[in-house]
Amino acid sequence: MQKELETYFDRLFPICRSITGNGLRQSFEILQEIIPLQLTEVPTGTKCFDWEIPKEWNIEDAYIITPDGKKICDFKKNNLHVLNYSTPIEQEISFEELDKHLFYIKEMPNAIPYVTSYYKENWGFCISYDEYKTLPKNGTYKVVIKSSLEKGSLTYGDLILKGESDKEVLFSTYLCHPSMANNELSGPLCLAFLYKKIVELKKRKYTCRFVIAPETIGVIAYLAKYGMYMKDKTVAGYVMTCCGDAGNFVYKMSKQETSLADIAAKHILKHQNIPYTIIPFAVGGSDERQYCSPGFNMPVGSLTRSMYQQYKEYHTSLDDKSFISFEAMQKTIETYFDFVRALELNDVYKNTIPYCEPQLGKRGLYPHSVNPTINRKIFHDRMHLLSFTDGKTDLIEIANKKNISIFDLEPHLNPLIEAGILKK
Amino acid sequence: MQKELETYFDRLFPICRSITGNGLRQSFEILQEIIPLQLTEVPTGTKCFDWEIPKEWNIEDAYIITPDGKKICDFKKNNLHVLNYSTPIEQEISFEELDKHLFYIKEMPNAIPYVTSYYKENWGFCISYDEYKTLPKNGTYKVVIKSSLEKGSLTYGDLILKGESDKEVLFSTYLCHPSMANNELSGPLCLAFLYKKIVELKKRKYTCRFVIAPETIGVIAYLAKYGMYMKDKTVAGYVMTCCGDAGNFVYKMSKQETSLADIAAKHILKHQNIPYTIIPFAVGGSDERQYCSPGFNMPVGSLTRSMYQQYKEYHTSLDDKSFISFEAMQKTIETYFDFVRALELNDVYKNTIPYCEPQLGKRGLYPHSVNPTINRKIFHDRMHLLSFTDGKTDLIEIANKKNISIFDLEPHLNPLIEAGILKK
Amino acid sequence: MQKELETYFDRLFPICRSITGNGLRQSFEILQEIIPLQLTEVPTGTKCFDWEIPKEWNIEDAYIITPDGKKICDFKKNNLHVLNYSTPIEQEISFEELDKHLFYIKEMPNAIPYVTSYYKENWGFCISYDEYKTLPKNGTYKVVIKSSLEKGSLTYGDLILKGESDKEVLFSTYLCHPSMANNELSGPLCLAFLYKKIVELKKRKYTCRFVIAPETIGVIAYLAKYGMYMKDKTVAGYVMTCCGDAGNFVYKMSKQETSLADIAAKHILKHQNIPYTIIPFAVGGSDERQYCSPGFNMPVGSLTRSMYQQYKEYHTSLDDKSFISFEAMQKTIETYFDFVRALELNDVYKNTIPYCEPQLGKRGLYPHSVNPTINRKIFHDRMHLLSFTDGKTDLIEIANKKNISIFDLEPHLNPLIEAGILKK
Repeated sequence: MQKELETYFDRLFPICRSITGNGLRQSFEILQEIIPLQLTEVPTGTKCFDWEIPKEWNIEDAYIITPDGKKICDFKKNNLHVLNYSTPIEQEISFEELDKHLFYIKEMPNAIPYVTSYYKENWGFCISYDEYKTLPKNGTYKVVIKSSLEKGSLTYGDLILKGESDKEVLFSTYLCHPSMANNELSGPLCLAFLYKKIVELKKRKYTCRFVIAPETIGVIAYLAKYGMYMKDKTVAGYVMTCCGDAGNFVYKMSKQETSLADIAAKHILKHQNIPYTIIPFAVGGSDERQYCSPGFNMPVGSLTRSMYQQYKEYHTSLDDKSFISFEAMQKTIETYFDFVRALELNDVYKNTIPYCEPQLGKRGLYPHSVNPTINRKIFHDRMHLLSFTDGKTDLIEIANKKNISIFDLEPHLNPLIEAGILKK
Repeated sequence: MQKELETYFDRLFPICRSITGNGLRQSFEILQEIIPLQLTEVPTGTKCFDWEIPKEWNIEDAYIITPDGKKICDFKKNNLHVLNYSTPIEQEISFEELDKHLFYIKEMPNAIPYVTSYYKENWGFCISYDEYKTLPKNGTYKVVIKSSLEKGSLTYGDLILKGESDKEVLFSTYLCHPSMANNELSGPLCLAFLYKKIVELKKRKYTCRFVIAPETIGVIAYLAKYGMYMKDKTVAGYVMTCCGDAGNFVYKMSKQETSLADIAAKHILKHQNIPYTIIPFAVGGSDERQYCSPGFNMPVGSLTRSMYQQYKEYHTSLDDKSFISFEAMQKTIETYFDFVRALELNDVYKNTIPYCEPQLGKRGLYPHSVNPTINRKIFHDRMHLLSFTDGKTDLIEIANKKNISIFDLEPHLNPLIEAGILKK
Repeated sequence: MQKELETYFDRLFPICRSITGNGLRQSFEILQEIIPLQLTEVPTGTKCFDWEIPKEWNIEDAYIITPDGKKICDFKKNNLHVLNYSTPIEQEISFEELDKHLFYIKEMPNAIPYVTSYYKENWGFCISYDEYKTLPKNGTYKVVIKSSLEKGSLTYGDLILKGESDKEVLFSTYLCHPSMANNELSGPLCLAFLYKKIVELKKRKYTCRFVIAPETIGVIAYLAKYGMYMKDKTVAGYVMTCCGDAGNFVYKMSKQETSLADIAAKHILKHQNIPYTIIPFAVGGSDERQYCSPGFNMPVGSLTRSMYQQYKEYHTSLDDKSFISFEAMQKTIETYFDFVRALELNDVYKNTIPYCEPQLGKRGLYPHSVNPTINRKIFHDRMHLLSFTDGKTDLIEIANKKNISIFDLEPHLNPLIEAGILKK
């Protein structure tokens, strides 16, 4: 899987994406090779709750020619150099004038920052502070941005994978940043490869909904269409973002904190035997802000690794391939898949012999003779399951009561159901 | 403020107060210079629940002449020398007889203890153990107590500061101990100066009730008259006592533990960045015993510093001006004032755009371009507020969810209300 | 008490008990000298929920003669040598054949393991690994087991000690293991001697039910008869097992976790000032498995010391007299007795003067003069009691609120009831 992840990463990374435009569409097309997303175009000007779909932005080229004839801030070398959503310009100007349109970070002198201006028309360039310092103060600069900002549409993709029930599990991520790794491509890649694992499950109780949309405005457009239905049907959901580097897992709870999404995530993380943190819902984040807005308040959490705004490379050219790990990305996918497995497995069962223990021995489910040093875990897990299946307590809670994994209970279900002493 | 506090302290300290009498009235008159308390006289013999107003006690002088002619236990030098509520006496007696009427503390040989006998008629003197040890065992002592114990009345003072609502916030303290500092004057001084700050607030939601009464019997008399009304109207209350020394803050919760009084106090203390302790309700205390008695069970807590019975100078002549700090007293007043500010500010709001986030940018409430290193706290506080204003969660709880102060949310309220995206 | 415990232990230890048979009956007869249990015989073949009473097992003798004429695995020397419930056999066989019927523990080479085969007919011997290793591989072995497995009955004993109410407190233990100490005799001995203490109480609110039965099948037979009644009446119950060695106390909660059984046990253990552990209900245990099965879910916990399956001597010949301590056993009995005392004392009272404090001084329940250094605990405990007796909060909860023992409140009850200010 890691090799494949890397191949797709390498194809997607160079593309200049934004919240609209052909870079976005091109990225969706590549992802469709992995997950058959259905794409939707939402026209410029469409009202979505408090928002409106902006003009579509496309860009061909951008650069600056310095007074001494050097080409700098070359979009073709790094698309972060251009202020995302820049209006077109081709003009000769002084350094003083140019300076008002340059973005850099003094504290990170070798990084090109990622800056956008979606909702106020502006043009600009992003540059490392090291390079900025070398710019001559006199003479004439030529600035060129060959972009367009016109009526068009915003693109999002989704896919519904039907299960036995119309109750849904949601996976959502964003596609809208140009060449960045952890805070852009880790989400869509993990979501797409998670889809590949889920689609192979023979039996699925829940319908799975996969959403890839430009952050904020894209998900708002999506929720304007499907939000009320999803509020009704979603039992658990996760926003996949910043999940591709080697940092420890962080699970950000939904506002509900005790939703099935949260219970399953905490349960799986607890039994992985690797460090992790649980944090409450907070607005400094991604699209869980929309899913958990007070009107929706859906059970949507988010499993990340090095989190947005918490690592210094965030939103700069340093969030690149060297920052991430395909091994870590695979572990993220597997962990999310374990969330799905736990949700699918979790259910409420009833012990059909509720008064005193069922006699397991006569059914071949308990040994006839027990040596004092025998490992009793397997029998005790089975008896524990029977002792707590009261028709009210679900399997995750039953596992939590013994501090074992729900997957430790799994092998006991069928034998007990076949023996007639357990039923749904 | 500290200078003023000290001036009033110096005027109040020498007066011999008790639960009734002219020393009490004289003290009330001085306090009325700061807070316009209305005084009430409750006649001797009035029944108040299980209690009855005792006779009024007044005293002019008291002393002992030793066999060798020395005047000791001179009331005019320190009014703690006389057993509070002593009956009058003028008699010559042996040391043996006198000894039955002397109170001292072996373990604190330089302290004059404070002892009372309100409900059983007795006379007596309080003396340091150091002095007690020097008393000649032979010869005749002359004891003089020029006091009176007669039908009269008990005095208490209160003031109602009307707010927009008839829901009330209570501040209660006692006035009844003779010359002691932390465990007597810190309470009335803090209450009076807190009043001065509250009265200057331009707008007040809550009606504030200020009560100064002799401890126990005075508050019982007050509650016999107003208790049922207060039980209905009081949303938060605090007993102000032992709050004038430099010890760390201790907040004693009401019995309810989760009342608004408790929530506000814990919230303010948490964000002061100075050490403090939270303790449960306990009967070893002051008038919260009456306010929180099982029939009333009002939301009344108490913020103290070095607490009654927990510091060795308590109830002795060593609880004097040197024990307290006017700087600390001012901080106590400011902290109580913050409780009031938090209670006044706290309310339930509703985000008028509950589905997905409101677009703050178009309202000038979010920057158009965001550099990666920007300090996002101010925007995140604002978005956090909007994300949790669901018409049910109040501001303190919303602040607690982000571990910030309610005062961090305050500057966002008006801009959001004016923008039409927040309402009560 | 310790001497008596030891005498009974020495008489009971050598007897070969099982889940049925004369060894069991003989043991009951000895216990009846301490507690007048009523014995019941349940015939072979009786259906009890999912189970059926097995044939009755009796044994006279068992041994092996080695090829060199040595008598080993001599039942008369240690009854653990025979597989409990062995079918009769008298036969000459090869080592190879014998080996299939030998039980030993490599990891504990000097221990004879305790092994049973109640529900599948088999014969066998248990032997220390040290001895096993010396057995000649060639030649003929003679195996003799003079046992019988025939229609008969299972014996259990119970005793109902009537109290004022038909609400019950249950004490249950098992009798069925041959010569073992902590995991057999500690339970019946503690239960019997606890009975002796309870029967001496002058007044008992609760009816006490004492049950001694073979583990699992015996209690299942008992519950088949009385379970529904007990489910209705039992307010607290305890399974007494593994409670005779010097290990620290472990309290295993009922599934309810907040039942009166659990609250009382935790309260008493907290105030004993000796180390202890509280653990949740788990199926690796004793007859609480039946009492807490999902259909019954009774408030039944268990106080143990070194717990089943947690000490290496468990279910071997090393769990003998040297493993236990009669001093510890006495402390177990006293602790269980404190559970009973707490349950008996615990009740809901009402302060008849709920508005403000009752005036204790006029009733002689508070001193007229209080020196600053007085120990206020006794008055504060009394006032605390009055402050929380609201007709809803019980005494254990009231004590917990002050982190004192319920027995600290006990001396205040009668004076306050007699003074007319407290009532049930």
